[in-house]
Amino acid sequence: MRPPAESLPHFLRPFAGEATTPPPIWLMRQAGRYLPEYRSVREKAGSFLTLCYTPELASEVTLQPIRRYGFDAAILFADILVVPDALGQTVAFVEGEGPRLEPIRADAELARLNVSATRSKYERVFETVARVRQELSRDVALIGFCGAPWTVATYMVGGQGSADQAAARAWAYRDPRGFQRLIDLLVETSAYYLGGQVKAGAQALQIFDSWAGSLPDDEFQRWVIAPTKLLVDRVKAQHPTIPIIGFPRGAGSRAADYVKQTGVDGVGCDTAMPLSVMAGPLADATVVQGNLDPLLLVAGGEAMERRVAAILAAVTGKRFIFNLGHGIVPQTPPEHVARLVELVRKT
Amino acid sequence: MRPPAESLPHFLRPFAGEATTPPPIWLMRQAGRYLPEYRSVREKAGSFLTLCYTPELASEVTLQPIRRYGFDAAILFADILVVPDALGQTVAFVEGEGPRLEPIRADAELARLNVSATRSKYERVFETVARVRQELSRDVALIGFCGAPWTVATYMVGGQGSADQAAARAWAYRDPRGFQRLIDLLVETSAYYLGGQVKAGAQALQIFDSWAGSLPDDEFQRWVIAPTKLLVDRVKAQHPTIPIIGFPRGAGSRAADYVKQTGVDGVGCDTAMPLSVMAGPLADATVVQGNLDPLLLVAGGEAMERRVAAILAAVTGKRFIFNLGHGIVPQTPPEHVARLVELVRKT
Repeated sequence: MRPPAESLPHFLRPFAGEATTPPPIWLMRQAGRYLPEYRSVREKAGSFLTLCYTPELASEVTLQPIRRYGFDAAILFADILVVPDALGQTVAFVEGEGPRLEPIRADAELARLNVSATRSKYERVFETVARVRQELSRDVALIGFCGAPWTVATYMVGGQGSADQAAARAWAYRDPRGFQRLIDLLVETSAYYLGGQVKAGAQALQIFDSWAGSLPDDEFQRWVIAPTKLLVDRVKAQHPTIPIIGFPRGAGSRAADYVKQTGVDGVGCDTAMPLSVMAGPLADATVVQGNLDPLLLVAGGEAMERRVAAILAAVTGKRFIFNLGHGIVPQTPPEHVARLVELVRKT
Repeated sequence: MRPPAESLPHFLRPFAGEATTPPPIWLMRQAGRYLPEYRSVREKAGSFLTLCYTPELASEVTLQPIRRYGFDAAILFADILVVPDALGQTVAFVEGEGPRLEPIRADAELARLNVSATRSKYERVFETVARVRQELSRDVALIGFCGAPWTVATYMVGGQGSADQAAARAWAYRDPRGFQRLIDLLVETSAYYLGGQVKAGAQALQIFDSWAGSLPDDEFQRWVIAPTKLLVDRVKAQHPTIPIIGFPRGAGSRAADYVKQTGVDGVGCDTAMPLSVMAGPLADATVVQGNLDPLLLVAGGEAMERRVAAILAAVTGKRFIFNLGHGIVPQTPPEHVARLVELVRKT
């Protein structure tokens, strides 16, 4: 049983059916390179994965934006590629170039992955969650997360980010059964990973499907909707009341189907989602979260103020969480973030 | 006045209101690196822009896929970056890396561009159109094209392709009036460029807006819909009956607004457009074109055959042109293209 909404942290109220004014606010990638205090910890850690796997450091950077801005939720500092790394795939973060993985391109190479080997690395992430939860005040919620199976697979197969996810899509066409085994394995290990985060203290979860947008409708059904539904089902079987937000970036007109079929409790809307859709059919169906353009947060000024006002006006009376449509970019002036929080809070 | 549909080339019939069986077929980037005969001409030309500006060579590669596959339409061989090059911006095509432009990042730098200087380069493209039209049989239509102002601007400002078009979007937020001047200039020169193609023999036009998808709704209205409508209006003022296809890639749920507001005669649907939308509300409003995944054309086999059948079944009775959802990729086996044409023609 969930407690009554009044005793809930502000962030969790929309999931209890409340349309709060002001809405809760947090920002994707709120702990990151745009913050000088983050860059200083990042430097101390040496490698990016070391930062993810060192609970003292990862909890520190998780908390930094809460201290600075008082967001309504902290999100665990980690990366969606923790999962392939924990599975045994070689993952490296190359400064200024992004992630590089030793690609897995066929069924036979799945033998390189080992689900039971993940535990020791996941445990360090769970310890970060526990530490953060202990240090956060009760009115700030803690969000856990993982990448959706499809999006994680695009990196595992492609070996890096790519505009069209061609390698994963090609494998899925060439050998759908083999690719299905990779997806199934990711559903299994991600369910364990998310469940562990909840046990350690996460009060909501977000599933990032950053590359959902490139797939044709039948493939979207098979590789985005179906595995996400399985993952949600598995987590809910253990933790029936945990709110889960899906973020199917680029889903466009398919977002409504995604919400209906996956069983998520909320949907992250990307920058391109029209306000009329976010605040209309999507908000009627679920909690909506979004969708200020991160580049408008870089620009700041009147253009940002106007758009924030337009978003807030559109979602009046809806179960809504203010966020960006994609992650904060490194060149964001920290004072623009402060101004954004102020604008949202004064509604 | 258009002639009655019976005497029209097959490709043009949907624009006269006919739902033909089989539908016309052509493929985006049908003249390109996947064809050995293209690679041989490309090598002879030296640089990519030399190929675009040499009518004997450009007309040859335009005709190659018609000879090989008998498509219902040829599309002028050129590049959307002919326009900035003709305007005087430095444009180079780096082998294996894509285009590189000396970026224009502020209003003051627009002085580097000169609309009246474009004529001599555009004339060479018009000569290619005239040559192709002369060599094509009467039952094969010739399509002219340009990039949409927004998409061309993303390259001019960013200096290269990018996943998020951050440079152009940042300028548009920082200084919308200055950016508007760049867009206005592109509308003006593109209208002249398209009009010249029609005069030289193009029987239909396509406006490629490959990066339409990243914009929030208000920016989509201002930088995609409004300039496209202006461009369509200008071309139609001179050539009222020329069919114009818009291709707002990534428009998602905004494609219907795009069709309604721009005045295009047809809409290219990208790979992610659900068949239920393409064959439903979009097909009720206009001619639809699309949307086989180019990676499925690489894979071929049963998966491709099933999807082609699904597309054809969905659009039965609609004004439809078969195409891909994005351009042919270089690793496409030419025999898969032959099989695709056969599949579409046997319906």
